[in-house]
Amino acid sequence: MVDDLERMWADLVPVGRSAVSGGYHRQPFLTAERELDAWFAEQAAARGLRLERDATGNTVAWWEPPGAAGPGVLTGSHLDSVVDGGAFDGPLGVVSALAALDVLRERGVRPARPLGVAVFVEEEGSRFGLACLGSRLATGAVDWERARELRDREGTALADVVEGGGPGLLAGVGRYVELHVEQGRDLVHRDAAVGWGSGIWPHGRYRFDLSGRADHAGTTRMEDRADPMLTFAMTALAANKQARLGGARATFGRVEVSPGGTNAVPGRVSAWLDARAPTPAQLDALLVAVERQAGERADRDGTALVVTPESVSGLVEFDATLTARLAGDLPVIPTAAGHDAGVLAAAGIPTAMLFVRNPTGVSHSPAEHAEAADCHAGVAALADALQELLTDG
Amino acid sequence: MVDDLERMWADLVPVGRSAVSGGYHRQPFLTAERELDAWFAEQAAARGLRLERDATGNTVAWWEPPGAAGPGVLTGSHLDSVVDGGAFDGPLGVVSALAALDVLRERGVRPARPLGVAVFVEEEGSRFGLACLGSRLATGAVDWERARELRDREGTALADVVEGGGPGLLAGVGRYVELHVEQGRDLVHRDAAVGWGSGIWPHGRYRFDLSGRADHAGTTRMEDRADPMLTFAMTALAANKQARLGGARATFGRVEVSPGGTNAVPGRVSAWLDARAPTPAQLDALLVAVERQAGERADRDGTALVVTPESVSGLVEFDATLTARLAGDLPVIPTAAGHDAGVLAAAGIPTAMLFVRNPTGVSHSPAEHAEAADCHAGVAALADALQELLTDG
Repeated sequence: MVDDLERMWADLVPVGRSAVSGGYHRQPFLTAERELDAWFAEQAAARGLRLERDATGNTVAWWEPPGAAGPGVLTGSHLDSVVDGGAFDGPLGVVSALAALDVLRERGVRPARPLGVAVFVEEEGSRFGLACLGSRLATGAVDWERARELRDREGTALADVVEGGGPGLLAGVGRYVELHVEQGRDLVHRDAAVGWGSGIWPHGRYRFDLSGRADHAGTTRMEDRADPMLTFAMTALAANKQARLGGARATFGRVEVSPGGTNAVPGRVSAWLDARAPTPAQLDALLVAVERQAGERADRDGTALVVTPESVSGLVEFDATLTARLAGDLPVIPTAAGHDAGVLAAAGIPTAMLFVRNPTGVSHSPAEHAEAADCHAGVAALADALQELLTDG
Repeated sequence: MVDDLERMWADLVPVGRSAVSGGYHRQPFLTAERELDAWFAEQAAARGLRLERDATGNTVAWWEPPGAAGPGVLTGSHLDSVVDGGAFDGPLGVVSALAALDVLRERGVRPARPLGVAVFVEEEGSRFGLACLGSRLATGAVDWERARELRDREGTALADVVEGGGPGLLAGVGRYVELHVEQGRDLVHRDAAVGWGSGIWPHGRYRFDLSGRADHAGTTRMEDRADPMLTFAMTALAANKQARLGGARATFGRVEVSPGGTNAVPGRVSAWLDARAPTPAQLDALLVAVERQAGERADRDGTALVVTPESVSGLVEFDATLTARLAGDLPVIPTAAGHDAGVLAAAGIPTAMLFVRNPTGVSHSPAEHAEAADCHAGVAALADALQELLTDG
């Protein structure tokens, strides 16, 4: 007998959890995440699934019953977390995928095509800085020759921890369905336990490099300074205001200050803007407005501003026909979070996404949560969708 | 023949200088600073001075001519630098002290008391985090039992690099005169090559801990956030404005963000305010105003604010009678920078300070500078002052 949803969840709860914050530290290719990788291989073996790995750490566990042929149906998610993140973002999709497979077997479903359960690596980009790294490599959205030089904060290159290159895992995949905890409160407002995704907002990450002049914090008159911290401060407030006005999202969550001493006026501040909006035009307008206000303040502060886009993705629309068919009467909602499902959709694989209600909407935090009943509703909805896709003409 | 000012300066220029930035890296008890320590011992030997060291790395080279007796006159400064600092902050005072001693000998001055040239260690606090560490230990302002556990960023304790404890070097010191490059432009505005110090502004360092709620940067609506980065941004702008209005100084040069991911609304921002003002009342008023504005913004952002004073020092006044006597017609100016002279003055040693003009006012930076003619004027003024103190009744 295989582990049920509760049993699997209980196994995962302690892995990589901080005793101090209660948050999860499951960065790719480090101890906790490797423990999850081993756990997944055990779960696959217990179900008699064939485990397939690529050279960058992505894994698919295939159910290939007699009579199943042709392009497979893929479901799954990821097991890594942001730094000090929540328990649900990622693992809920993997655990639900295994549980849904068990439901199909209990129902006696005879699949016409293979079913794969996927675990993509480094979805959060918390170690090597590029979100959805595993799925981007698997779809060819990012080249290995570029990715191999990505480095973590200790300077370790991706190529130091995985072999990389080689064939992807998605050649035999015809459709992808990903279940994920919702990271907002749309389903709360709609009073629904689960809902399907319409698409993913455009998303950009931009590095703001503000340079001024390092000086003595005591003796340099305020009038004689060129302090980039002031330019940054105004930029952060401007980004917040523009996002509010435009129904968008703007966040400065990472800042680096040089030289970084208490008694030194900074010479340089680098800050990363994470911006998302319903449409590409709205995202562009947000960035233009923030850059303009940052530039005006830089003129006033005597500092210089350089903005470098580190990654910008357009609007991702999931397969509308597929989604309508699977959703039935369930709500269909947009999301502002990136997902491996977005990468697979952009690569041309017909894709749908299923969300499970999150009472607070909080995510990327120890407070991230989903009720057990809603998680079971998610498994049931996923099982129904997979059954439909595995047994249709 | 001993090295003259130019020769000594030329010897020091390359030591610990970064080929990239041109800045100096002379952290205490590491290679470059130890090279300077050895250089000082050689200079003392070449002049027939008696070298005295304490167990924490402070050094005094004594000139004790026949007939000299009683409490000595001390001059000097420090040889360490901030990280990527300038050439003048510290070394100019040591080199000028040696050059002034040479001038006195050339003049045939017969001192009634001994003259010491001091080098205090870790004045900048750039390695073990406590400014004026050497002079604080020598005066007993800081206990060895507390200081021994101070650690650098690699975790090395002060007790791992020096023996510590034991008697100080200042028992036989009656007066202290320190020459230093000016770190502002007061002398530029007064069109004077040198000037004397009236005292050191009160100085406080305060940690602002701002806590909110870590959240997903994409999916969390702006209205649902409690983002401490916004509170910090407003606090930094408020501190700048208050310092400008009050003729004071306020700097946020160090910021730590948690979790620190590009795609995460921060849960916590810690930022260090360095504040200085002409009087303790003005420093208090500055802090009160900044705290009030930070608190108002915290209420608006849904964040919480805790302000912890990490160190606060009162106004240091140098010996006014001594200063007036030595200054004659030269200007007397305040400074907002801490110095070993402030520590010795606070310990009850009659102290005066002499500043050399800095054309840009820039300090703690590779751009720190003083013209050669002004450095010579500094040596002459220091020699005059020492002659007065060594030969008075």
